[in-house]
Amino acid sequence: MVEFKSANDFRLRGGKYFMPCISIDCVIFGFHDSQLKVLLLTIANFGGYGLPAGFIYKEEHIDTSAKRILCERTGLQDIFLQQFYIFGDPHRCDENITKTVFEKEQIKAPQNNWLLQRFLTIGYYALVDFEKVNATPDYFSESCEWHDINHLPPLAMDHNEIIQKALFTLRTHLRYEPVGYNLLPPKFTMPELQSLYETILDQKLDRRNFQRKMLSYGILKRLKEQRKGVAHKAPYLYSFDLRKYHKALDEGFQSAW
Amino acid sequence: MVEFKSANDFRLRGGKYFMPCISIDCVIFGFHDSQLKVLLLTIANFGGYGLPAGFIYKEEHIDTSAKRILCERTGLQDIFLQQFYIFGDPHRCDENITKTVFEKEQIKAPQNNWLLQRFLTIGYYALVDFEKVNATPDYFSESCEWHDINHLPPLAMDHNEIIQKALFTLRTHLRYEPVGYNLLPPKFTMPELQSLYETILDQKLDRRNFQRKMLSYGILKRLKEQRKGVAHKAPYLYSFDLRKYHKALDEGFQSAW
Repeated sequence: MVEFKSANDFRLRGGKYFMPCISIDCVIFGFHDSQLKVLLLTIANFGGYGLPAGFIYKEEHIDTSAKRILCERTGLQDIFLQQFYIFGDPHRCDENITKTVFEKEQIKAPQNNWLLQRFLTIGYYALVDFEKVNATPDYFSESCEWHDINHLPPLAMDHNEIIQKALFTLRTHLRYEPVGYNLLPPKFTMPELQSLYETILDQKLDRRNFQRKMLSYGILKRLKEQRKGVAHKAPYLYSFDLRKYHKALDEGFQSAW
Repeated sequence: MVEFKSANDFRLRGGKYFMPCISIDCVIFGFHDSQLKVLLLTIANFGGYGLPAGFIYKEEHIDTSAKRILCERTGLQDIFLQQFYIFGDPHRCDENITKTVFEKEQIKAPQNNWLLQRFLTIGYYALVDFEKVNATPDYFSESCEWHDINHLPPLAMDHNEIIQKALFTLRTHLRYEPVGYNLLPPKFTMPELQSLYETILDQKLDRRNFQRKMLSYGILKRLKEQRKGVAHKAPYLYSFDLRKYHKALDEGFQSAW
């Protein structure tokens, strides 16, 4: 790991240590209490919002880079990140963050500065319980905050497009991968699981179809206990069968056919 | 477009024109008559098989690069390619094709030759009717042939892994995107569509469930005509509703919930 004195030291000298022309952007969705949010940074001396982003050390696996970047930029650790897309428009960096900061701070960088080139960026996303997260900004950022997915501010570069693509991917992943572990309590009811799906999909689902589909995936264990203190018919409690849950994460749901 | 005199001229001088450290690999699945195959090149002076691959011009959109590469390497045009993954193991290029060819041909290249660096590669895949394709190799390749997906030879670098990931992606895409246009005749029966799915998934499907699911997607039009010349009950003919088909390609199937 290389130490830099400041964000600008990083911007001026980082090219020696990182792969050229390729970055990583992290879309962190936060779920809690039937709300879906996304984690944004305000970038120091830039005057705007952006995704937690960073670069790949010359000897580093890209998945390791994504985890490290997220931790460095936000303090978040041990998060299950998935790559979802690579953004490759040749003009996506025409007005990039480094260029803007250099102009504002009147820093004269050489034209071949590594950050003033065209970059492709690899999008990674994760879904976490935002109440369990204590996000803290680093020296690139003035703040690190959750924003409602339906009321996002304008973001740097193509970051709005990156979030929309991540949301689309998360919604399609719901169809063939399990979601919910770490977001729901260890024991939950079918309506609680349905509420998670409805929030992510931003649509109401049919109760019977949802239950039939979820049970067909084979990742749920119905417990003997029922939810107590409920007036009428007490709902069954479920928990995830973690062995089957992780198998389905690797292989996708097999029962869908 | 830049002209090169030979494959080795490309390997020695190409770094001036292409983005560094990032390549594209194309996995072209061919379907015909209930068989699934993949298109492989034999690489000249390398002594082995590889995927059609190439690089991104400094001003080029990556999707344009993928189409161009496929056309240059195989003669295939107008193919609907989808990116599916970026491969980022730091050691995936330790024994790369250029290194092997330079050693065999005793070409002395500078250590900082652009192709002797670590590369990430973006995987793109397509599914085509292999009977409609007249694949022809270019100057990098001795031949360009279809291979049965279940009997692949060992491939260069991580290309076997890239194919497996593409196949996994194709199978999951079947669950939320339409497949079949250009692979089936304009009018087809439900059993013909099911055969396509069974071949890709490499498993038998339940006839009723399959029909119910396919109809629920809303991309099929049942025609008034029935298949003629069939002994017993003549099966209905269907065609794709192309407007809905392309909408579903963009947005995913909405009816899945």
